[in-house]
Amino acid sequence: MSTSITIFDTTLRDGTQGEGISLSADDKLKIAKKLDDLGVHFIEGGIPGSNNKDIEFFRRVQSLGLRAKISAFGSTRRKHSLAEQDENLQRMLAAGVPAATLVGKAWDFHVHTALQTTLEENLAMIGDSIAYLKRKGLEVVFDAEHFFDGYKHNPEYAAAVLSRAREAGADWLVMCDTNGGTLPGEVHEIVSAVGLALPGAPLGVHTHNDCELAVANTLAAVQAGARHIQGTVNGYGERCGNANLCSLLPTLQLKMNYTCIPHESMAQLTNTARYVSEIANVNMPVNQPYVGSAAFAHKGGIHVSAILRDSRTYEHIEPEKVGNKQRVLVSELAGQSNVLSKAQQIGLHLDPSSEQARKIIDRIKELEHQGYQFEGADASLELLLREATGEIDELFTFESFKMLVEKTAGGSVVSEAFVKLNVAGESLYTAAEGNGPVNALDNALRKALIPYFPSLRDMHLSDYKVRVLDEQDQTAAKVRVLIESRDYRTAWSTVGVSGNVIEASWEALVDSMRYALLGLHSPQPVRTEFGQRGLVNH
Amino acid sequence: MSTSITIFDTTLRDGTQGEGISLSADDKLKIAKKLDDLGVHFIEGGIPGSNNKDIEFFRRVQSLGLRAKISAFGSTRRKHSLAEQDENLQRMLAAGVPAATLVGKAWDFHVHTALQTTLEENLAMIGDSIAYLKRKGLEVVFDAEHFFDGYKHNPEYAAAVLSRAREAGADWLVMCDTNGGTLPGEVHEIVSAVGLALPGAPLGVHTHNDCELAVANTLAAVQAGARHIQGTVNGYGERCGNANLCSLLPTLQLKMNYTCIPHESMAQLTNTARYVSEIANVNMPVNQPYVGSAAFAHKGGIHVSAILRDSRTYEHIEPEKVGNKQRVLVSELAGQSNVLSKAQQIGLHLDPSSEQARKIIDRIKELEHQGYQFEGADASLELLLREATGEIDELFTFESFKMLVEKTAGGSVVSEAFVKLNVAGESLYTAAEGNGPVNALDNALRKALIPYFPSLRDMHLSDYKVRVLDEQDQTAAKVRVLIESRDYRTAWSTVGVSGNVIEASWEALVDSMRYALLGLHSPQPVRTEFGQRGLVNH
Repeated sequence: MSTSITIFDTTLRDGTQGEGISLSADDKLKIAKKLDDLGVHFIEGGIPGSNNKDIEFFRRVQSLGLRAKISAFGSTRRKHSLAEQDENLQRMLAAGVPAATLVGKAWDFHVHTALQTTLEENLAMIGDSIAYLKRKGLEVVFDAEHFFDGYKHNPEYAAAVLSRAREAGADWLVMCDTNGGTLPGEVHEIVSAVGLALPGAPLGVHTHNDCELAVANTLAAVQAGARHIQGTVNGYGERCGNANLCSLLPTLQLKMNYTCIPHESMAQLTNTARYVSEIANVNMPVNQPYVGSAAFAHKGGIHVSAILRDSRTYEHIEPEKVGNKQRVLVSELAGQSNVLSKAQQIGLHLDPSSEQARKIIDRIKELEHQGYQFEGADASLELLLREATGEIDELFTFESFKMLVEKTAGGSVVSEAFVKLNVAGESLYTAAEGNGPVNALDNALRKALIPYFPSLRDMHLSDYKVRVLDEQDQTAAKVRVLIESRDYRTAWSTVGVSGNVIEASWEALVDSMRYALLGLHSPQPVRTEFGQRGLVNH
Repeated sequence: MSTSITIFDTTLRDGTQGEGISLSADDKLKIAKKLDDLGVHFIEGGIPGSNNKDIEFFRRVQSLGLRAKISAFGSTRRKHSLAEQDENLQRMLAAGVPAATLVGKAWDFHVHTALQTTLEENLAMIGDSIAYLKRKGLEVVFDAEHFFDGYKHNPEYAAAVLSRAREAGADWLVMCDTNGGTLPGEVHEIVSAVGLALPGAPLGVHTHNDCELAVANTLAAVQAGARHIQGTVNGYGERCGNANLCSLLPTLQLKMNYTCIPHESMAQLTNTARYVSEIANVNMPVNQPYVGSAAFAHKGGIHVSAILRDSRTYEHIEPEKVGNKQRVLVSELAGQSNVLSKAQQIGLHLDPSSEQARKIIDRIKELEHQGYQFEGADASLELLLREATGEIDELFTFESFKMLVEKTAGGSVVSEAFVKLNVAGESLYTAAEGNGPVNALDNALRKALIPYFPSLRDMHLSDYKVRVLDEQDQTAAKVRVLIESRDYRTAWSTVGVSGNVIEASWEALVDSMRYALLGLHSPQPVRTEFGQRGLVNH
């Protein structure tokens, strides 16, 4: 029998304290649904009464019928007052949810500096508040703020805080590394000591990533006996973030044999991480462990030839277990084997010894020499391979474009683009403005294509990078433009290279739209005005 | 006495295996210089002979006179051959650097699967290659690939690999967690066991971040006796990246009392991290531990009032120790001292308590809010300070520009720029072509200005970078352009921000020329057709 760990998600509360993370009530409800599907046990929804979004969330979440327990966050009662009359505790009750996360001070320094009260009064604040919430029928998770810093300075007091919370009936005693400065060895030692001092106590842990150790500290606490972990999707949270559940869940469950979420949910992890990053409108780092798009991407030539023999050679787990997939990046560091495995991956049968294979590899080498880089542009590489093997039925052909940028003495700038295309034998000429030249081109292309391919409305450009390729006179040098596009399901990347930044952008932009219109970005072919279109010759 | 740890940086080799990281020879040289200033002990420069950039790097790095040892990376000799005749070992020697990183297999599974040879032959390959490089006078760092996975499957063989490397004379025996799947407890146990089996051996560690544990694993190895750590700036590297030196250095040195880099260099850490991310043209996550812009940013209201009382309440270290700063997201309090010290640096006397100083700081804050970043654009900041203190006598004023880019169906692209300027009371209208829009603008500006300022002929643009600033629809987002210019003596950098890439480029371009024409780039004022022009009012 594997030991169970209770998963407490605080993406909707501590996660939103991160810089650049802002969630509407609708966003929060969507994320709560997704977390419930994943199988977490607690979802901390926010701070009742702190703002309208949280009030709305607590009101609406009850009708979703989630299995996870929703928890409302708040502090202990004010000093020298009654729990029954505490405004904040009343708001927590009014949230109408089955659980409360009550935060209290565990570091004597904070009791003096931040609360400006006595150590005894702080214990009373904790005991009274928990006892009151328990009498009202709530499950109470007690978050002992700054527990580890407190323990290092005054272990007796920190332990007394947990004891008082336990006596008052708290269901979980959660030790928090609020400032994120504690090291794994210290966490292990302190949690072990607490386990000895409070035998059988239901211990939990809440860590922050200020030393890049939040995941390691949580693991150390679990190994020392904690059975409840608090964290967020993608590690969002105040300052450097919270413990990242997307790294903790697979490590605990696939490598350490604990049970965290239902076995069959683990393959939803990558999708959950990407979904939450889309809702939060934050780009997910490509190199994020387990769930990032580069987590199982191979670039070095030696690595690539080895994974083709046996993927265990350079992969610590099978990517499919967390819903991710292997990718082979084509770059100057690699060569032929990368191209062939990419072809294999997209289902093209390319005989390595054929004249066709040789031609394709020569063509890619030639393009790389010109400055193309396909490791960050999977979609452009796939288009190139399919073109070379005759598998593409072009949906539109480009005729010409013109672009005008004008800045007047008054300071305003106007960008206009004029695009000539041929779609299904019809010649189209469109003009559009934009707030920059690439935006104007994008708008003019969409104007021409959307009547024929309405699905283009679902896609948008999510990243745009420009890189100068050599270092002579730089304004005369070649540039490489990388564009990432997304729809609600997936993301794909394209590349353009030219001496002219506008032309390079145009190239990447057109590739991105071709890729989407050919339905290559998703398993479902795209429906167009002409009916269903597949991937191959027809 | 604090124990010393040898810092081995592999940003230029393993770092470039990361998706989206591509560095030119110039980029690599700049980063090597910066790493040397920080005080790392080894800089792994690349793989000799693998591509032209690395060949050029090894040739040019020797003239920089760095204190750090430069190391060339390569594999053991091919199976059943002589080290003396091995092409790869010859290329490592030809790099002409004092150290070599030799990678060899430590996992029996890999010897069979990837090398397809016997366990004994692999040991011979390791021993022969190290002995040969040692005979040629190199310091040899032996990277035992997949050491931890190997040890878990066949501890005797993994240990035999290290023994053979030691006998052959390797200066460091580095245990690599190549697939990044090992947990801190396992690392501690295995490194401890190796330390007992090979008493006094010079042990090192190289970890990857596939479980978000690279930093923790490195710390575990150090605690078990490793005295050499390999990592990269910002954790760049294959898949999920390498151990992040920007997190390891302060944790080891400020918290665990080891000596890694000179004490006075630690405050350069944030600047180094940001510099490398700029050169690599990769956005640094705001929440990166220690060095990210949000690492000491406080958003929560309770936190903010507490840190105003005592910053230790919510900060695990003083941000200044790593060259970072506290930010309060509700009311920006930072920046003032930086601006004042810059003013002092360029010889402007700015009274910190004056109305003028307050206005300048407000103006800079406002610009930073709009997306300007003066850390990489000293020249623009200097122009702004001199303008604000009335120390600039403008040499030309801009009236308007127009830019046209046209691509025909035939495929050729034409870029034309039309510029209206006023120079010394004369109105000038010039037109020029270029191989891209920015080049056309540059040419048109030069055409107008060179008759008045012949010294412009000496300067050229040496770098041009574009960065997208926010993450909505990216072609409609703001961009920041950084331009670096040079003449034969010196280099200077300028910045422009706009929703329009052409306008942002124009802004940085004009600043660059103004800076040069005012003679601010060099101690010698520029000679013009009007005679000598100084820096200040005249």
